[in-house]
Amino acid sequence: MTHIELYDTTLRDGMQGEGMSLSAQEKLRVAHRLDELGIDLIEAGFPSSNPKEIELFDLLSREPFAHAQIAAFGMTRRRGARAEADPGLRNLADSGAPVCTIVGKTWGLHLQKVVKVDREENLRMISESVAFLAAQGKRVIYDAEHFFDGFADDPAYALRCLLAAADAGADTVTCCDTNGGTLPHDIAAAIGTVLAGLEASGVRIGIHCHDDAGCGVAGTLAAVERGAVHVQGTMNGYGERCGNANLVTIIPNLQLKLGYECVTGEQLASLTQAAHFMDELLNFTPDPDQPYVGRNAFAHKGGMHVAGVNVDPATFEHVHPDVVGNRRELLISELSGKGTVHARARDAGIPLGDEEAGRLAERVKELEHRGYHFEAADGSFELLLRKETGEYEPLFRLESWRAIVEKRADGRVETEATIKIWVDGERYVRTAEGNGPVHALDRALRDALVEIYPHLRDIDLVNFKVRILDETKGTGSVTRVLLDASDGDQVWGSIGVSENVIEASWEALVDSLEFGMRVAGRQAPDEAASAQSS
Amino acid sequence: MTHIELYDTTLRDGMQGEGMSLSAQEKLRVAHRLDELGIDLIEAGFPSSNPKEIELFDLLSREPFAHAQIAAFGMTRRRGARAEADPGLRNLADSGAPVCTIVGKTWGLHLQKVVKVDREENLRMISESVAFLAAQGKRVIYDAEHFFDGFADDPAYALRCLLAAADAGADTVTCCDTNGGTLPHDIAAAIGTVLAGLEASGVRIGIHCHDDAGCGVAGTLAAVERGAVHVQGTMNGYGERCGNANLVTIIPNLQLKLGYECVTGEQLASLTQAAHFMDELLNFTPDPDQPYVGRNAFAHKGGMHVAGVNVDPATFEHVHPDVVGNRRELLISELSGKGTVHARARDAGIPLGDEEAGRLAERVKELEHRGYHFEAADGSFELLLRKETGEYEPLFRLESWRAIVEKRADGRVETEATIKIWVDGERYVRTAEGNGPVHALDRALRDALVEIYPHLRDIDLVNFKVRILDETKGTGSVTRVLLDASDGDQVWGSIGVSENVIEASWEALVDSLEFGMRVAGRQAPDEAASAQSS
Repeated sequence: MTHIELYDTTLRDGMQGEGMSLSAQEKLRVAHRLDELGIDLIEAGFPSSNPKEIELFDLLSREPFAHAQIAAFGMTRRRGARAEADPGLRNLADSGAPVCTIVGKTWGLHLQKVVKVDREENLRMISESVAFLAAQGKRVIYDAEHFFDGFADDPAYALRCLLAAADAGADTVTCCDTNGGTLPHDIAAAIGTVLAGLEASGVRIGIHCHDDAGCGVAGTLAAVERGAVHVQGTMNGYGERCGNANLVTIIPNLQLKLGYECVTGEQLASLTQAAHFMDELLNFTPDPDQPYVGRNAFAHKGGMHVAGVNVDPATFEHVHPDVVGNRRELLISELSGKGTVHARARDAGIPLGDEEAGRLAERVKELEHRGYHFEAADGSFELLLRKETGEYEPLFRLESWRAIVEKRADGRVETEATIKIWVDGERYVRTAEGNGPVHALDRALRDALVEIYPHLRDIDLVNFKVRILDETKGTGSVTRVLLDASDGDQVWGSIGVSENVIEASWEALVDSLEFGMRVAGRQAPDEAASAQSS
Repeated sequence: MTHIELYDTTLRDGMQGEGMSLSAQEKLRVAHRLDELGIDLIEAGFPSSNPKEIELFDLLSREPFAHAQIAAFGMTRRRGARAEADPGLRNLADSGAPVCTIVGKTWGLHLQKVVKVDREENLRMISESVAFLAAQGKRVIYDAEHFFDGFADDPAYALRCLLAAADAGADTVTCCDTNGGTLPHDIAAAIGTVLAGLEASGVRIGIHCHDDAGCGVAGTLAAVERGAVHVQGTMNGYGERCGNANLVTIIPNLQLKLGYECVTGEQLASLTQAAHFMDELLNFTPDPDQPYVGRNAFAHKGGMHVAGVNVDPATFEHVHPDVVGNRRELLISELSGKGTVHARARDAGIPLGDEEAGRLAERVKELEHRGYHFEAADGSFELLLRKETGEYEPLFRLESWRAIVEKRADGRVETEATIKIWVDGERYVRTAEGNGPVHALDRALRDALVEIYPHLRDIDLVNFKVRILDETKGTGSVTRVLLDASDGDQVWGSIGVSENVIEASWEALVDSLEFGMRVAGRQAPDEAASAQSS
């Protein structure tokens, strides 16, 4: 089995994406996670005189990694200068990173219109920069920017750029589809020519794709099938515009479908967790539809699909979810039945007889007919299971609540909510203001409950969606509220349905907090363990 | 140039995705939008005895489409039954759709383990079902489920399934990668064999991919490059698990990069708007990183990139954003360009100078930055034009309003709203109850206004959607309300944005009624005419 070298550029190219922001300490956590996942090379950034970058490379140089090596990124020397006098190349040489990746031009359009460098001088810039870093004992990777555009424009010159790097001592030359628009068959054809042209040099060929044509993964695979052995990409496809090639999709494709060796089976089984870890760290909601690792990637809705995977997972699953650390999600919906209820109850640790499961499936059907939709409300669904099986204990007993929103004559909007509840025989009356009625109710309720359940402080409402179900009656129709909440670790959904949007929100809110307390209870032993070890 | 037939299955396979929910009226709006985009075939669903589906096919059969044809979807006949006696096939025959698509098995694993049908009987099921529908004068498309898994397992039998359909009169046979795990090179190889095997029959070959390996688009392109001429997919890649092949990416790839003919240049330039329209209708946040149409697809961050595109867009852009109706900015909106503002003002009969249009475009940009989104709120957009050009007259002047929602100790929920407004120097104070706070506000407001504007009685609020914009802050964030209203003849959208959901709803409600009165004024002559003729 050929080993394909995995080169992660999340910490450099990925950081160009919208909303990407990590501290040096967080980047360090990312590097360790990538190391655990079995990534071979971690491009950590652009070592410059910027104190933040200096701190990062200092931190990295002191860290022990099990397997990964750190790469520092920079550019070829300036036009007309000497490589050893170039401050950027000096920073690379001094960075402490054993691997240096430098990017340079390949495309006439850029030489002419952007950097205004003569073609021969460009070749010298490549060659002298590579030679300088190689002489410093670095492993040098040369990234040929806009390689495929340059190749389409002038294949001979594009090859000369790669050869300049290879002859000067680059260990790997990477063909970059910088603008992301090259389709897989054109990538494959170009890589074929590159391999033939560079065979004598013994240099390794790398590939670096972007997703502007929705083919970042496929382009990468096409290059590997033609002989590229070094793959650059980012976790979850982070990156500017439409993102970089997504390593989280590429790794299982290479390993499970094409038979290449990338990471161990154990590392592959941590893929889902690693992908979600990255999203959490960056405060992104994980894409539920992401191949292999998304919450929906192995979700089955239709009755026949559910029946099929029960007989043989291969009938409706292209790979087994366990292999990538994901799980089969059986969506609760009108279309499904008793089997799904059984499976969900098992996950929640609720013993369920066959008759009970049948009754519950009927109950779900009836509720979904009234507008509930448990697919996106796993928290409410588990609470429903508990209520129906007598395994449910409410956090409190409601006496009443009231929300008032007022637009005053001076134009200001004021919102206030009052709740009256009972907990353990004691009555709590609380009033709170808020940005809106649900916010005010949430604050009033938590104000009463945190005294008894301090964990409620850790729960954030992260998403709130409202939809009218019978669209022919406008604001007089049934309203469905979907609420997502999180304790920073797990995310769960809850649902409320009512003619009244505030009542529906209240219902979802209560489910959200009650389920949050259950999650907390379930995690308690782990939390204790991690508290001890830290 | 070969024409590639575009087959959209958003309304059928796309609806299997999580959170997909559309009313019959909304499906109709989708169908019209797909027609405008130049889609050839619109698969509308599964005609059954379900009243909702019957209503949809009734509505569709009465609609005039400029170009698109409606396809109805079903399955091959039941095992051991007669095709003409099969209720599903009868529903297809009676659906009024000129095109019928039927799906059948191809893969031994499924025949053996899931449906328990003998291989020869399966071929008869395919052949007799196709023949029955063809005899009813339908154009028949045969969807070979799990084709690529079946082909990998037993290529000869997989081909026999396709041949059975072709010989029985299917006009197109579609090779479906139902589990979504087949990589593009395997798809290409299989399609090559299929074409060779079916050449004599003259049948057209179609492709239907899913995105479970992140290669749904690339697999589709690979099939087309090998000779498939019919492409199935969904808008924005909606669909179960990781989604179907994304037509929004496939169309520009086929047209701009591979030189196939799909839609007109004008239609292609409406792609971004069509993609966002779908997301808005479904209450999804458009993916900012989506190829071609995402807000970030042509966003440039690095200084060199910005300088480069200023010199020549080709330096850092794989296609020009205008071609797909997108733009090179972080903040995009279909309406914020000066040209669009001009066109909309012309439609509304508002004279507009060039400078005024520029100022308005800036204003729209600023509002969209604050969370407004005029794409789905044509009513509010026209009112904004009027406000900015001094062509606006409010229906009333607001003094104040108040909404109270109370969950009482006996469990009942009561809602009441009071408004205080001025019309023509007179003060109106009205209180009304409602099913929810917006309903109560709507009733109180109309109660005051119908005395002066009796037409308000005819306006119904038909749709109400709420979304939190900054999802990291839960119920404390900015809320966007989209409201659709109708007078039974026209439908218009309005928008409100506020921290407070009730304030945002109020804003949308007022726009809705004010625009409704304008529509009434505009239609007065027509109404008189239609009153005479009826």
